[in-house]
Formats: sequence, C-alpha cells, structure tokens
Amino acid sequence: METTLHSRTKTVVIGPEQPFVMIGERINPTGRKKLGAEMAAGDFARVRRDAETQVAAGAQMLDVNAGVPTADEAELLVNTIRAVSEVTDAPLCIDSSVFEALQAALAAYKGKALVNSVTGEDERLEKILPLVKKYDAAVIGMANDETGISMDPEFRLAIAEKIVRRAQDHGIPAQDVIIDPLALTVAADPTAVKITLQTMRMIREHLGVNMVCGAGNISFGLPERPPITAAYLAMAMTCGLTCAITDATDPIIRQAVRASDVLLGHDEYAANWIAEFRRKKSG
Amino acid sequence: METTLHSRTKTVVIGPEQPFVMIGERINPTGRKKLGAEMAAGDFARVRRDAETQVAAGAQMLDVNAGVPTADEAELLVNTIRAVSEVTDAPLCIDSSVFEALQAALAAYKGKALVNSVTGEDERLEKILPLVKKYDAAVIGMANDETGISMDPEFRLAIAEKIVRRAQDHGIPAQDVIIDPLALTVAADPTAVKITLQTMRMIREHLGVNMVCGAGNISFGLPERPPITAAYLAMAMTCGLTCAITDATDPIIRQAVRASDVLLGHDEYAANWIAEFRRKKSG
Repeated sequence: METTLHSRTKTVVIGPEQPFVMIGERINPTGRKKLGAEMAAGDFARVRRDAETQVAAGAQMLDVNAGVPTADEAELLVNTIRAVSEVTDAPLCIDSSVFEALQAALAAYKGKALVNSVTGEDERLEKILPLVKKYDAAVIGMANDETGISMDPEFRLAIAEKIVRRAQDHGIPAQDVIIDPLALTVAADPTAVKITLQTMRMIREHLGVNMVCGAGNISFGLPERPPITAAYLAMAMTCGLTCAITDATDPIIRQAVRASDVLLGHDEYAANWIAEFRRKKSG
Repeated sequence: METTLHSRTKTVVIGPEQPFVMIGERINPTGRKKLGAEMAAGDFARVRRDAETQVAAGAQMLDVNAGVPTADEAELLVNTIRAVSEVTDAPLCIDSSVFEALQAALAAYKGKALVNSVTGEDERLEKILPLVKKYDAAVIGMANDETGISMDPEFRLAIAEKIVRRAQDHGIPAQDVIIDPLALTVAADPTAVKITLQTMRMIREHLGVNMVCGAGNISFGLPERPPITAAYLAMAMTCGLTCAITDATDPIIRQAVRASDVLLGHDEYAANWIAEFRRKKSG
C-alpha cells in the first residue's frame, strides 16, 4: 500500500518498496526554548534555516510543530508553515494536539499533508477524522487509546485496525492512514523494542498499511544516542517501518537509513547511497 | 539453544538471549599480502598485534586463517594459533578448507573451538564431522551444497536441516552446529539480503540453532562499506543472527552491534553500551 503526499509542486510516495521517507523532526519548539521564543516573536529565520538544512540532508518531508505554550497555536502554526513553504517544497507533516491549530493549518496548506496525529480514542477519532477527510489529507494513527499504551502487540494491532476501519467509515482510504506502532524508551523497559518490532510485523501482515515512528524516544536516557536510533531504524525497516520522524541532519542516522534502503533493494544501483557518500566526501 | 566455546581459561556463550558475539576477522592472509608473507616467514608479530587489538575492541572470539598459498597450511595454522594464544584467551574459530590443517589445529588447540566450516556436501560432511566429534568442537555449517547457493530460502533451510541431522548422526548435538545462512553481495543482486533475512527467520523458527555470517561480503563493490555492514548486522540480529565473523575494530560496526544488543534487551542496564561510550570518549 502506498501513501502519496504532496506540496504544491512536489510529491512523495511512502511505501514498502520505496526508499524510506525521513520526515525531518527539527521544526518543533519542544525542548528548543530559543526556537520557541523566536517563533512566538514572529522571527522565523531559524525555522527557514532548519527547513533548508533538513531537506539538504535528505529529509523528503518535514514535520512542523508550533506548540509554544504562550502563543496562539493556530496562528503560529499557519505562520510557521508559511515560512517553511517559502524555502522548500517538501510536503509537510502537520503536528499538533490542538484541534483548532490542525484545522487552521490544513485550511491554509496548499497540498496533501500528513496530520500528526490521532489515537484510537473515540473522541479523538470523531474529531480529527472529519478534518482529515475534509482537506483530503493523510493521518498518523497512534496505536494507543483511552486505556493507555499496551505492551501486548495483539492489543496495539487491534487499535491500529480500529483506526483504519474508522477512517474508512469517514471515507478515508486505508492507504491514507499511517500507523505509529509506538516506540517506547528501551532504557525504561528492555522488552520495549522487541514488542514494537513484533507489533510492526503483525501490522504489516494483517493490515499492510504504512508505518511511522518518532525514532528519537527509543534511546532516551542513554549516552551516545544516534547509533542507537540508527540501529533501531535498520531493525524497524526490516519489520515494515516505511517512514520516520527523525533527524536527517545526523549523518549516523541518515547513513543507517540509506544503507538499509540498499540492503532491502529499495535503492536501485545504490544511486542514493553513492550520492550520500559523495555528500560525505565534500561535506 | 546455546553454543558454549572455550579456550583454556575463557568461556564464550553464543545464544539468542546473549550479547551478540563478534568473531574478529582480521587474522586472515586473504587480501592481506603483507600479513601472509610475514606469517609464511615465521614472523607472527602482526598476528599477535591483530589479536590484541581485536579483543581490546570487543571481539569475544577470533577467527584464525592461515591460507597462504606457498606455505604448509597445517603447520602454519598451528603456529598462528600458538601465537594468538600467547596474547589472548579468546576462544578461537579455526578457519580452513584444508582437512589436514583443521586436523592439526584441532589436535593442537587447548579448548573447545569452532570449526570454520563444513557445507551440506556429503563428501565434506563425512570428512569434517568425525573430526569435529573427535575433538569435541563446534562447527559452522554453510547452507549450500554441491548444487551451489540457492536463492530459495526453503532450499537453504533444507540444507541447514541436513547438516544438523548429519551432525547428530555423528554424535554432535544441534547446539554445536552454527548455521551460516549465506550472505551474498547486495550490489550483485538487490534481493540477496531479503532472501538471507528470510532464511534466518525460517532457520530460527524451524531449527532454533545459532547463526553466523561473514558480514563483510554484503557490501562488496559499494563505497563506504562499514555503515552498510553495520545496518546489515542490526537487521540480521532482528532475524536471529547470534554471532558474526566481522571487524570489531571498526567503530561503526562495533557500535551497531552493541546498540542492537541494547535494543533487543541483551545488554542489561546498557552496561556494555556505556562501556563502549567510555571507550569512544577516551579513544
């Protein structure tokens, strides 16, 4: 199954036989106080720079989050999207937990965006899915619900199934739902990754939809995090992960993704790999 | 299933719930002309240095190959093993295609060695397995036979089954057979890795034995090889690979292995990972 997203001028296809899609994670004020303060003050220079840097590093899409506590998130998200769109044509992943912000952003966005995100909670589904349908967007479905995050892969699969079914009820085809099977911190629970990988295999087999993860959480609390994220992405790609919200500007992470593409036969003639190698030599 | 190997003073356990075992690949004159010439001339200084460097880098075992065309391989292999044993107590993987060399090396080795290797060919099995039994060694079984290397995972599994069964006929328990599911060069065939990973999953499910690979072949012919080997090992560990003959001295490879151990829950409290991080800081 393939998910097709586009900006006004650029299309990205996410799918099991496609090169892995890196969705640049950096335009997000969470944990980046300076960026948040600048955004709230209407200064988008760093946002633009981050957009350009991530795309230059190989991010095919960009996540945009404007969750600054003191600001009107709807207005700020629209302005951030505008700033990003001035400097790159990468399709966007619109990232907010605030309904009004998603609504304003989708109304303003020119293209088919990825909405980040909905959970399996009934209330969220009934709020977010009509919006996704109205603006012909795609949506990330998190495999948790009002009962929290289950450590049973069967249960996460059941929530993923529910989200896909409910989307279809709203007229959103399965290929426009990308499931996040949830990647928890391995330092807190050494079985966390095994459970997520098992969930991925089951979702691939039973639902066949695309899968995404926020790759940064996994290594939280450990020293020297990029090689852990890199190994995780290689593992997850083997189990069906087709895109990730991650730091494409980190060479260890980027190289693991592009190497895994070669290994899985998703990089014909290793063209992207050789381009990456040239980037490294000149960089 | 766990394979236990030992030198006179040190034991290594290979198994699906153990930290991944790196078998240092560097004591091998293939493609190392200078090393081969020195070995043939009775100069083992570089062999000793390579043994020490690999163990210091985290290799739990060492592969020892003495295939120098102009030399008496049996004598040279015995002398090389002796040199290695002078500087490290890591258990050894005795690597030769020459029966007499394996025989002499096993007779001389103090410990339980891993024999590298036997194939599924009847003639090889009937020659090598009695030797493995006689010296209470373990053996690497390559999943190919007189018909060559199959690109059908079912066929490779069948050869692996044959090797395990035939070993048992000779009184060698299944846990002393480590299967090499064969990793071919991805640049020559973009489906090569997918086929090997599928073979691994099937061997894990149906036979449950340990698996090894020579991790270097995969990236042959591509630029910037270590990140490709690194991503491959992370993927293969997800599919059941429990050890590899590889270059532990390469930080990219070593970090991918140790990060994957953390991710799979095989590195309690991330103790090995944190040690690796300290190594990097001081190195």
